[in-house]
Amino acid sequence: MAERCYLDWNATTPLRVEAVEALQEALAVIGNPSSVHAEGRAARRLIERAREQVAELVAARPADVFFTSGGTEANMVALTPAIETAAEKRPRQRLLMSAIEHSSVRAGGRFARAAIEDVPVDAAGCIDLAALTEAVAKTPRPLVSLMLANNETGVIQPVAAAAEVAHAAGGLIHVDAVQAAGRVPCALGALGADLMTLSAHKIGGPKGVGALVRGSEDIHIADPLIRGGGQERGMRAGTENVAGIAAFGAAAAAAHSRFAAEAARLQALRDTLEQGLKAISPGLVVFGDAAARVPNTTLFALEGVKAETAVIAFDLEGVAVSSGAACSSGKVQPSHVLAAMGVSPALQRGGVRVSLGWTTTAADVERCLGAWRKLASALSKGQRGIAA
Amino acid sequence: MAERCYLDWNATTPLRVEAVEALQEALAVIGNPSSVHAEGRAARRLIERAREQVAELVAARPADVFFTSGGTEANMVALTPAIETAAEKRPRQRLLMSAIEHSSVRAGGRFARAAIEDVPVDAAGCIDLAALTEAVAKTPRPLVSLMLANNETGVIQPVAAAAEVAHAAGGLIHVDAVQAAGRVPCALGALGADLMTLSAHKIGGPKGVGALVRGSEDIHIADPLIRGGGQERGMRAGTENVAGIAAFGAAAAAAHSRFAAEAARLQALRDTLEQGLKAISPGLVVFGDAAARVPNTTLFALEGVKAETAVIAFDLEGVAVSSGAACSSGKVQPSHVLAAMGVSPALQRGGVRVSLGWTTTAADVERCLGAWRKLASALSKGQRGIAA
Repeated sequence: MAERCYLDWNATTPLRVEAVEALQEALAVIGNPSSVHAEGRAARRLIERAREQVAELVAARPADVFFTSGGTEANMVALTPAIETAAEKRPRQRLLMSAIEHSSVRAGGRFARAAIEDVPVDAAGCIDLAALTEAVAKTPRPLVSLMLANNETGVIQPVAAAAEVAHAAGGLIHVDAVQAAGRVPCALGALGADLMTLSAHKIGGPKGVGALVRGSEDIHIADPLIRGGGQERGMRAGTENVAGIAAFGAAAAAAHSRFAAEAARLQALRDTLEQGLKAISPGLVVFGDAAARVPNTTLFALEGVKAETAVIAFDLEGVAVSSGAACSSGKVQPSHVLAAMGVSPALQRGGVRVSLGWTTTAADVERCLGAWRKLASALSKGQRGIAA
Repeated sequence: MAERCYLDWNATTPLRVEAVEALQEALAVIGNPSSVHAEGRAARRLIERAREQVAELVAARPADVFFTSGGTEANMVALTPAIETAAEKRPRQRLLMSAIEHSSVRAGGRFARAAIEDVPVDAAGCIDLAALTEAVAKTPRPLVSLMLANNETGVIQPVAAAAEVAHAAGGLIHVDAVQAAGRVPCALGALGADLMTLSAHKIGGPKGVGALVRGSEDIHIADPLIRGGGQERGMRAGTENVAGIAAFGAAAAAAHSRFAAEAARLQALRDTLEQGLKAISPGLVVFGDAAARVPNTTLFALEGVKAETAVIAFDLEGVAVSSGAACSSGKVQPSHVLAAMGVSPALQRGGVRVSLGWTTTAADVERCLGAWRKLASALSKGQRGIAA
């Protein structure tokens, strides 16, 4: 197989060198972190070092970081009526979320379907703060869940403003920062986040590890999702994924120390890519480009080109891109994100996502443009085998 | 630090060579298994190969293996009133379990506390089948949860007989085989198990991976614990722990191909160990030795020696052993397993567990005996700093 060009970093990233090293080091440590002997204590130290590293990425206290098996589990844990604060132990009745959340947030955690309300987004892909304010006014003490960056468009959500709205009504806010971490600042305090979800494999760590981070020690989840041995100070049971957690920590430290440099470089590459795409196909639409976006993501469509067709054509040219969210079935569904943004049904099935990362080069962008040029050219010649 | 001697294999095992190789291979695969491009398909293939390997270990169909983040999560998923069969969709009202289950089973999954009933065990540490039959008679269509091998004593439970009792009453049986897999035969069909829990890190795979296996495609869990992207055919959401799953598969294949040879060798070592311990301390009690046990485990106590003291003394001699279950706090609690077996309160706090594995040698057993000899000698001289 010719050298491939991987441009699907929002689906998952390769491991960072630092994560590989931490993982190798951890694999040599035998012990169970709950064991009191030397082997157990060595495993425990790896976890606590990683906890400090992840905490630093989001400016939290290590004691407020709870490791999970990934972002999806962290979202399931966070979204519960049984979030208590030091002042308030009564269950929360309603969950408000933007209409563009990830499927693991849209599943609603432990809230009943009828207790969940969608808040619309505008055409640029940003939550409608006026609509949020209105919804909150009708819902005392809500739990609000708002992603920091959308996984399909990359659009950054006004989390700090939404947090103010939620807090003014006695509510709390959960922030899914899976696609934002390592790409934009994620300090919990600055965002006003009460709970935040992170995933290792989106920042150069391994798949199967994530974290739920709380904004203060006052926040308490009274009904842990996974119970048993009481690991993670009772927040989650089960022997810890020691090697995965150690690698997550190393990836977080690397992402934290380099993200400003990486962000500037990726934004330049992304701009080149978008200008190139529009030069090839003047009718091409880039979604969310009227809003602030994370620097590595572009989601675009061209009328007459189905996402499925485009993704396969790119793949045949050796370029890995996506049709939006990587969903379990591998099937392309109309995007709920584009639908919420009011995009026409024809274009909803056309969104092609190209997402870049720290090893992406200008040559990769050129190769992506070359693949699109070929597809667009075939399309304009009416080759129906490729065009939709 | 002098060379250590690790004899706490029931807490966690080192990685098998085959698991390390599979993990390394998987780390080089970038893709998200849900992605349709070549990278995604390569990741998907790793998972499906591992599914076949895990299925073979327990003589199941690959389609009946669902990967989880570990044994604890698998137990939480399995223990739900919403287990349906092709014939029966009504929720199950009661969960019956032996009094010696692991804490992650004792937590009861999604059953209300009041719906859970303990079934006693006898002095040898085996479930009382007459008591189970009686409990089932009062409880139509129960879910029974019974471990195949106890994690503290190693005692093998009469699962096939318990399955017959459960099935005769229209019930189902869940089998926690975490400590049995790779040590005794675990074929689902022969055991009559409807659901079975496995953990990778007890058979030479990494921590943070496990599986729930069903006995037939007729069994359906209607309320997945973790929802979102619908991975694992809807049974569990979240990007799969690809490298961990691949390593689990390799460990399962290695355990499967070697377990008869390993079992015979370990049993001989364990017999030497127990004879040696009794020769040093004639009053020493080995728990569960009147029953069939997995070949690698011994749990013993000597009046006047607290487990905590012994574990620390062993650790100082470079030998890692345990005081029973590795619990999250690192604190030694009186063992609920020994309490259920009717062991005197004095001895309940004295259980020292030594558990062996595939790299354990006769020299390790000698070293363990040497450490015990030193401790026993100090005790008999009345050195109160070491003795309890």
